[in-house]
Amino acid sequence: MSSGSGKSVCVVIGVGPGNGAALVGKFAMAGYRVAMIARSPDTLAELEVHFADAKGYVCDVADAEGLNTALAAIERDEGPVEVLVYNAGKGLWGDALEVSAQDFEASWRVNCFGAYNAARVVLPGMIERGAGNIVFIGATASRRGGAKAVGFAAAKAAQRSLAESLARAFGPKGIHVSLIVVDGIVAEPFMLERFKDRPRDFFVEPIDIAGMALMLVNQPRSTWSFELEARPFGEIW
Amino acid sequence: MSSGSGKSVCVVIGVGPGNGAALVGKFAMAGYRVAMIARSPDTLAELEVHFADAKGYVCDVADAEGLNTALAAIERDEGPVEVLVYNAGKGLWGDALEVSAQDFEASWRVNCFGAYNAARVVLPGMIERGAGNIVFIGATASRRGGAKAVGFAAAKAAQRSLAESLARAFGPKGIHVSLIVVDGIVAEPFMLERFKDRPRDFFVEPIDIAGMALMLVNQPRSTWSFELEARPFGEIW
Amino acid sequence: MSSGSGKSVCVVIGVGPGNGAALVGKFAMAGYRVAMIARSPDTLAELEVHFADAKGYVCDVADAEGLNTALAAIERDEGPVEVLVYNAGKGLWGDALEVSAQDFEASWRVNCFGAYNAARVVLPGMIERGAGNIVFIGATASRRGGAKAVGFAAAKAAQRSLAESLARAFGPKGIHVSLIVVDGIVAEPFMLERFKDRPRDFFVEPIDIAGMALMLVNQPRSTWSFELEARPFGEIW
Amino acid sequence: MSSGSGKSVCVVIGVGPGNGAALVGKFAMAGYRVAMIARSPDTLAELEVHFADAKGYVCDVADAEGLNTALAAIERDEGPVEVLVYNAGKGLWGDALEVSAQDFEASWRVNCFGAYNAARVVLPGMIERGAGNIVFIGATASRRGGAKAVGFAAAKAAQRSLAESLARAFGPKGIHVSLIVVDGIVAEPFMLERFKDRPRDFFVEPIDIAGMALMLVNQPRSTWSFELEARPFGEIW
Repeated sequence: MSSGSGKSVCVVIGVGPGNGAALVGKFAMAGYRVAMIARSPDTLAELEVHFADAKGYVCDVADAEGLNTALAAIERDEGPVEVLVYNAGKGLWGDALEVSAQDFEASWRVNCFGAYNAARVVLPGMIERGAGNIVFIGATASRRGGAKAVGFAAAKAAQRSLAESLARAFGPKGIHVSLIVVDGIVAEPFMLERFKDRPRDFFVEPIDIAGMALMLVNQPRSTWSFELEARPFGEIW
Repeated sequence: MSSGSGKSVCVVIGVGPGNGAALVGKFAMAGYRVAMIARSPDTLAELEVHFADAKGYVCDVADAEGLNTALAAIERDEGPVEVLVYNAGKGLWGDALEVSAQDFEASWRVNCFGAYNAARVVLPGMIERGAGNIVFIGATASRRGGAKAVGFAAAKAAQRSLAESLARAFGPKGIHVSLIVVDGIVAEPFMLERFKDRPRDFFVEPIDIAGMALMLVNQPRSTWSFELEARPFGEIW
Repeated sequence: MSSGSGKSVCVVIGVGPGNGAALVGKFAMAGYRVAMIARSPDTLAELEVHFADAKGYVCDVADAEGLNTALAAIERDEGPVEVLVYNAGKGLWGDALEVSAQDFEASWRVNCFGAYNAARVVLPGMIERGAGNIVFIGATASRRGGAKAVGFAAAKAAQRSLAESLARAFGPKGIHVSLIVVDGIVAEPFMLERFKDRPRDFFVEPIDIAGMALMLVNQPRSTWSFELEARPFGEIW
Repeated sequence: MSSGSGKSVCVVIGVGPGNGAALVGKFAMAGYRVAMIARSPDTLAELEVHFADAKGYVCDVADAEGLNTALAAIERDEGPVEVLVYNAGKGLWGDALEVSAQDFEASWRVNCFGAYNAARVVLPGMIERGAGNIVFIGATASRRGGAKAVGFAAAKAAQRSLAESLARAFGPKGIHVSLIVVDGIVAEPFMLERFKDRPRDFFVEPIDIAGMALMLVNQPRSTWSFELEARPFGEIW
């Protein structure tokens, strides 16, 4: 039981080999006790080995009840959640005749509904303490639809609007909600392989996304940002 | 059976006493055969009496299968759908601790998922014919989140992104997708009662929303609009 | 002197062989007395021959004093201006090291400052009458900067913000201010020649821009639009 | 002569008692040699006393020639400019009939044209070195027009579009251009007096704006931000 550790608790939802792992490492190094949520136990187990202050909780964010249970367990075992980073959600490509209704719904469930459910669990404690941070990891599609991004864009736009509504409602209560718009290809194993002809500085580095999330969490209350891009210098936009 | 009528078919999804009824009337008067979809048969029955060219189909847009069945019946009975107006969706107010997860999901289901499912039914025929119109009825919340609009805004933002993705994907195939951002209080019975101290020109008139939808459907292919506001002259924005 | 004609007066600022000429024709056919402003008298003379109800006034919109004088002459000779369409402004391409400070300033002067000066002349009368229309002809660059559009985009963004400020300030006084975002290549002689390998329906038709402007002018006060695109169906956006 | 100091040079344009002074202090403390540009020599002299590494250059940013001369003197005396922070520009309030054409133009000249001219001086060196930072200090009005902000909003929108065009054009050449949208009342003497009934945490702290500018300058090239808000936690937006 780590609730006696005196460390602040950060939950990272959606932990895979890219941004998720980097977020875990960055917050652990910054002195947080990190609770990690992922569907598969493999990455979690590996990260637990690397970071003594990280603990994995297996659940599928698309399963509202499972997510609520996992977050309740975290608050019980680790202590009150001070930082929530919502990183769940992967791309879904195709137009309306190529993306099935099932996938369209699943994308919303992971990118938006899971975030809503998670926020609802941690918000009451944050409000009571008058402080807290919720960081969403968004994408180019958070801002605009695309011919081949119908499902992903609708889900990410919903997430962005959710984040904005949360920021407006709970900012005055001391809770900082923000959105990182990742506008580039993340240097995770799959993408590095797929774009292997590109130089390394073509990519968004997960560790820099994590650094941006930590920066947001540390912003003084006089100058909070809601939304900012994470874009590689060479990106054409 | 009206498929022999030679009239173009317009489907209005979400028919109540406000914009829905006005849309039915406007398109019927413009020479369309109008198929109306609503949950309750009452408004439909009344409108069928007023407009010989309007026919009601009862279904709940939140029920994907029911919606698909109704649209299939319409295409079989009335003929190919040339115009789809998606007017379903009502407001949902409250912050994340006031709006239940069930209502949050229901709002998405009515405002976004139903539209996605409906579009998927009518698009193949439109693509085959190289022509068609899909008009979404949006709201102020389509563009931004709000402290007390977390569920409605997330759903309407998803709908807007869906509309934009459809417009981008299928515009070059001759299908015009557009979004009317209703930025004001609609003069429907409930709102007229609630804001009864306001002059009539405080409100958005349903018949003018309907006129705007018809205008969009008639826009020449050289100058299509994707998104435009319907805002009363005195609105503070 | 035509002030006795009983016709409403529409001023079109920026009259060349593309949108300007089409706007003049469209409003003249719709029953307006049209005052045309352009730098060169040639197009004006030609249009005066075609449209008995159009009269040319030569001035450079970048010259504030000249513009004020021309508009004063119009109000004296033709009667109160009920519709102002601001179509002046041409593209300016290049990055910050390619566009001179002189051209950067000139672009702002034509696209934004001229519009401001013109609005200031016609607004008092419109406010007094509690009615009036100002339509701005914008461009893709009204909404976003571009690597090679530094001067044009800064000027068009300023124009868009000016239009929005006017709409907010004077809407409640009965004055409808709107912006057409032309998102495509206009079918004017120069562009038709430059893109001569494209089919005709690749282009934005000036007459359809003019139709959109007239539609905006005729919008009922219950559902005014501020901003809408004019985009050819095949445009990739 | 400090060009032998080995320190990087940061130019802060628009130095008054609020954000300007804080920017000077922040960058001086971070190890930069800071060149300060302001119209009045008073603040400059005071800051020179406080910060050994800050040197004042008197000029009016609205005077293009004077600005070019000052920047040339800085590059000659201090060394190549690695960071340019453009903080010039003050509010201008009123609608189109309340703001004179002179003030409307002056606002554009200070907020946009001065920035353009300054960027044109420092960009060639930055391109040659493949690195550099330009930070714009924007405002709520950068994003939207307002009934009583016609001049300020048009000027700030032009500045934002300029910044975006620069970011797109020169990002791939290693130059990071960014925009801080200050969405709140800055805690400078005049505003502290005007809103003296408000608690201190109602305000945006200049030192935090300066910290945000320094953070942007230090962002890794893998995750550059273009635009982000500086908004006090309690702000209603």
